[in-house]
Amino acid sequence: MGLNVYGHVITPATQRVLACLSEKELEFELVQLNMAAGEHNKEPFLSLNPFGVVPAMEDGDLTLFDSRAIVKYIEQAYKDKKPLASDDPKKMGPVYSWLEAESLQFDPAAIMLTFHLCIAPMMGLPTDEAVVEEKEAKLGKVLDVYEDRLSESKYLGGDSFTMVDLFHLPNVNYLMGTKVRALFEARPHVKAWVDDILARPSWAKVVAMIKSQS
Amino acid sequence: MGLNVYGHVITPATQRVLACLSEKELEFELVQLNMAAGEHNKEPFLSLNPFGVVPAMEDGDLTLFDSRAIVKYIEQAYKDKKPLASDDPKKMGPVYSWLEAESLQFDPAAIMLTFHLCIAPMMGLPTDEAVVEEKEAKLGKVLDVYEDRLSESKYLGGDSFTMVDLFHLPNVNYLMGTKVRALFEARPHVKAWVDDILARPSWAKVVAMIKSQS
Repeated sequence: MGLNVYGHVITPATQRVLACLSEKELEFELVQLNMAAGEHNKEPFLSLNPFGVVPAMEDGDLTLFDSRAIVKYIEQAYKDKKPLASDDPKKMGPVYSWLEAESLQFDPAAIMLTFHLCIAPMMGLPTDEAVVEEKEAKLGKVLDVYEDRLSESKYLGGDSFTMVDLFHLPNVNYLMGTKVRALFEARPHVKAWVDDILARPSWAKVVAMIKSQS
Repeated sequence: MGLNVYGHVITPATQRVLACLSEKELEFELVQLNMAAGEHNKEPFLSLNPFGVVPAMEDGDLTLFDSRAIVKYIEQAYKDKKPLASDDPKKMGPVYSWLEAESLQFDPAAIMLTFHLCIAPMMGLPTDEAVVEEKEAKLGKVLDVYEDRLSESKYLGGDSFTMVDLFHLPNVNYLMGTKVRALFEARPHVKAWVDDILARPSWAKVVAMIKSQS
């Protein structure tokens, strides 16, 4: 029983769930899969997520898959802990819109840059420079929109930190250690937002966990 | 004031919002953009959605973008009308997971098939057969997972119709008029689910609106 997370600390998606659990100060067990051996594409993991993508989670007898879905569930199930959303639909409207921006605009560029600039080198795989160039251009355009948004409100969803900002943490953290850092630093409101969210004590705990377990 | 939807009835994303408004029996005004003239990539639309993708919506002085975000907002703001979600986190956990499956697994294949097999021919554009073949193979794999899921529960999120099922309606409706119909019909639980959701009276109203306004 309790919360069991199945994934691997080096993957941004697993880190997304860890960031939420750390923010909410919830106890959990992390079950690390041997992804090099393809454990995410075999049983028993496929019974947790039939699409074979980490992470998955059990909360008692409930099984969930997908990092963003898991965070949304945790938010609703553990509402009393530091909230990452609001009960006010007028406040949630913009949060819903920017959640889709993260998933459909930011992430498709950022995850490929994280993979090619951070994860591939760790695994001894080659970096595809053509992909990096294409995704850097795409990310720059997304960050132009973010710069405008963050000149109006401190966080993407509004005046307080929500799951939208949290969802960005893993890729932002990886990319600030690469040449892509320049894209964030060239935009002052984006830079201030990145500095703010990376400085959260809950994220520092995740970074410590990544270092000790990867 | 009131609900204003900006989009075009032929786009699956606009239809997704119309399906929700029809299900909830809410009054609204649809403002059709001239997409051939690129109105979605120019002001004033860019002030509604800086990413230049339809649809966007105004609810009084609140502005929202992205079809799935708009539906989630409507669900929360107009909860008393036929619910498309639940307040019970144990029921919502699977809904959150299958919402991500729709957005990240089903839609990337389905929207390209809808575009190449339905929308491109309407606009006199060529169909890319190589893309069709690749996306048919991908969709078949996704529907294999759906077939397993729908053998356990009547709808994707559980025992009742939720926004997860609703989000599929536009692409499913388009694709049932193409050769891709065979992929749905080859899987008996998927076939029963498709028949069920397409037969909703709220969807019939959207189909009538599409026919009269496109």
